[in-house]
Amino acid sequence: MPVGRIASFVDRERLWSRHMALGRIGTFGETGVNRPALSALDGEARAQLVSWGRRISLLPSTDPIANLFLELPGSQPELAPVLIGSHLDSQPTGGRFDGVFGVLAALETLEAMVAAGYRPRRSVVLVAWTNEEGSRFAPGMMGSAAFAGARPLEPILALRDADGISVADALAGLAAGEADLPRRPLGFRPAAYVEPHIEQGPVLEAAGRPVGIVSGIQGKRTWRVTVRGAEAHAGTEPHASRRDALMAAVEMIAALKRHLDDPADIVRFTVGRLDVTPNAPSVVPSRVVFSIDLRHPDAGTLLRLGDGVAGLCVSAAGRCEVEVEALLHDPPLEFAPGLRARMRGIADALELPWQDIASGAGHDARHLALLGPAAMIFVPCRNGISHNEAEYAAPEHLHAGARLLAETAARLAEADDDEIRELAS
Amino acid sequence: MPVGRIASFVDRERLWSRHMALGRIGTFGETGVNRPALSALDGEARAQLVSWGRRISLLPSTDPIANLFLELPGSQPELAPVLIGSHLDSQPTGGRFDGVFGVLAALETLEAMVAAGYRPRRSVVLVAWTNEEGSRFAPGMMGSAAFAGARPLEPILALRDADGISVADALAGLAAGEADLPRRPLGFRPAAYVEPHIEQGPVLEAAGRPVGIVSGIQGKRTWRVTVRGAEAHAGTEPHASRRDALMAAVEMIAALKRHLDDPADIVRFTVGRLDVTPNAPSVVPSRVVFSIDLRHPDAGTLLRLGDGVAGLCVSAAGRCEVEVEALLHDPPLEFAPGLRARMRGIADALELPWQDIASGAGHDARHLALLGPAAMIFVPCRNGISHNEAEYAAPEHLHAGARLLAETAARLAEADDDEIRELAS
Repeated sequence: MPVGRIASFVDRERLWSRHMALGRIGTFGETGVNRPALSALDGEARAQLVSWGRRISLLPSTDPIANLFLELPGSQPELAPVLIGSHLDSQPTGGRFDGVFGVLAALETLEAMVAAGYRPRRSVVLVAWTNEEGSRFAPGMMGSAAFAGARPLEPILALRDADGISVADALAGLAAGEADLPRRPLGFRPAAYVEPHIEQGPVLEAAGRPVGIVSGIQGKRTWRVTVRGAEAHAGTEPHASRRDALMAAVEMIAALKRHLDDPADIVRFTVGRLDVTPNAPSVVPSRVVFSIDLRHPDAGTLLRLGDGVAGLCVSAAGRCEVEVEALLHDPPLEFAPGLRARMRGIADALELPWQDIASGAGHDARHLALLGPAAMIFVPCRNGISHNEAEYAAPEHLHAGARLLAETAARLAEADDDEIRELAS
Repeated sequence: MPVGRIASFVDRERLWSRHMALGRIGTFGETGVNRPALSALDGEARAQLVSWGRRISLLPSTDPIANLFLELPGSQPELAPVLIGSHLDSQPTGGRFDGVFGVLAALETLEAMVAAGYRPRRSVVLVAWTNEEGSRFAPGMMGSAAFAGARPLEPILALRDADGISVADALAGLAAGEADLPRRPLGFRPAAYVEPHIEQGPVLEAAGRPVGIVSGIQGKRTWRVTVRGAEAHAGTEPHASRRDALMAAVEMIAALKRHLDDPADIVRFTVGRLDVTPNAPSVVPSRVVFSIDLRHPDAGTLLRLGDGVAGLCVSAAGRCEVEVEALLHDPPLEFAPGLRARMRGIADALELPWQDIASGAGHDARHLALLGPAAMIFVPCRNGISHNEAEYAAPEHLHAGARLLAETAARLAEADDDEIRELAS
């Protein structure tokens, strides 16, 4: 089969119109998307995906954490399959491309294979991972973590969202609408995993390259900080006797900002969430809970900077009590070198200008790398904006990324186990 | 009528049990009260008050902002009435005494007058002001402000709570349950106004005095600060190009804290409310709205310190935009000297140890002082704690405060217009 044959069946217009169609499920403003994981809207997007897959006879299934699969069976289904995809949930103020592009590029890959009359040797399986974003149930990458065994399932099921709804309850609600989908057990070992995604940064756009071969994912540590003080009357309580949880939190965040200041601008430090109790203008706050998100591509630096977080919070607590819970520590990750080399060659053969690029954001591919060779394809997004209704990726860039995925998946689907083993090194 | 006769009919047990009864309407925890203004719970408390009043033939009525009145008609109803009371709404994490004590001490005053067979010359009117706390609809002291003409009614009716419910809608909902209450027009000029209240501070308890004659209320200025940045991905967006609304807000609050630092601990500076958008752990915040509450007993100092607030916020905004809206500027207030002198004499006659005391908190009496002689009675509360479920006032102190109110109200009800005029100076 000549290089480029499968890619030639990737349909730019269909790919674009499906982005627009999913963008209408949970839309806000002109182009914003708010589609929380395991919500009714998430169910609607999943049903749409299953419907598209059934038109070309893909086999749908779902697992105990609601990861959704669409399978194109191979001629040797006993071989480990090629897994491709991303996620369908969004941030509360998300756009139309984050996650969705990886799922639709995978669907387009399967469409192209079917249209080309190509029957792969290994099965090729599309996946939409559950709750990548982690904004409804934290932390994110929940479905891929459970799938890869990075996190046990039971404690995940007990997590609750801000309304007190547990993951188990939300899963049950979703499952009620998907009674026609076969269930499969949690996890399997794919031959390889490839995830396309918008870059969510400015590098490819500035370089004028339609695709990036992702070298790896920077490390990430997260914490939840709970500051406990005492409610008091804003007009009467002397400052000397106040235990003002918000003032303590402000001191902590200011101290963290100084500690994590980086003139080279490589450290990423974000307090994205902060909740005040009772949150009334004339009451001294008794309780503040805030999140810390810290990322760095170097494992040693991430360790050193992160290890200072709890001590700084305690030092800045004043008369309040503080609890610093470490939620996540993902060290920096490098994707499979052999797989990346194959993808560079395919991009060249497709005459797609490419470059190596590091990922600032975390992705489900992090967990799949635990199971075998994994890689990612980035496409540019305008001004590097993501998690925002202004998020935008051009149809020609989505097309380029999907072509690279389609051709890569076809090559991987033909590879024997020795070739698969070589992808890792 | 001998001094002390009316006070002798004030019933300590009834006064206490009524505090406990109202404390069960909107209760949380063991002793907390969450009874938002104009809510169904507020309506329940009002209905209980009206029911108690009707047992002794008091005449209920309500006005266009839902201030609630119970009147004991005088023998010369054409004279300006004596007005006594406080409020029934609570903070979200309030206790059983804030506001409620003033209303129940007024009811106990009318009970005592009726039980003594005393018919006052001037009518004596109990009032429960609408939305003193301002936590559901900001700013507070809404009912007394409208009553006294300090704020026009129309813009008040258009205010909305966090759920988007307007004051007008909430009033309509309350009125539907109070169809049997006569309506009266907004506002009248009372001969005098006396408001009992728990101190909400530690002074009387430390001094061992059951009552305080309040000299005045410190000045208060409030602002709402809106910081606008841009949503961005926590893992990818460089700090150099971030417009992080929360980091800007933290810089602003830290700068305000330095500006308002007061070694003498007389300045009161509180950020009680802070809301983050979109408030997700891995999204750089695009919007933060926070409250500023600044109080000081000296008019010049309050003016000078407050005039620096907006400039400091702008200076600390960095790459974000900031809007600083001044909501309230109440200068310090002194209560009517002649009335306070009368009350000191009555306290002496009742053998109640008293002292002069300044109020750190704002009260409805501030607005009533616009209409004529006004004063307040404070009673101790344990550890100075208020706006907190641990708020507690001892039955004997509530009794002492109610006795002073009852005797004061009886004296005022007999005063002719010349005597009333002398109360102001």
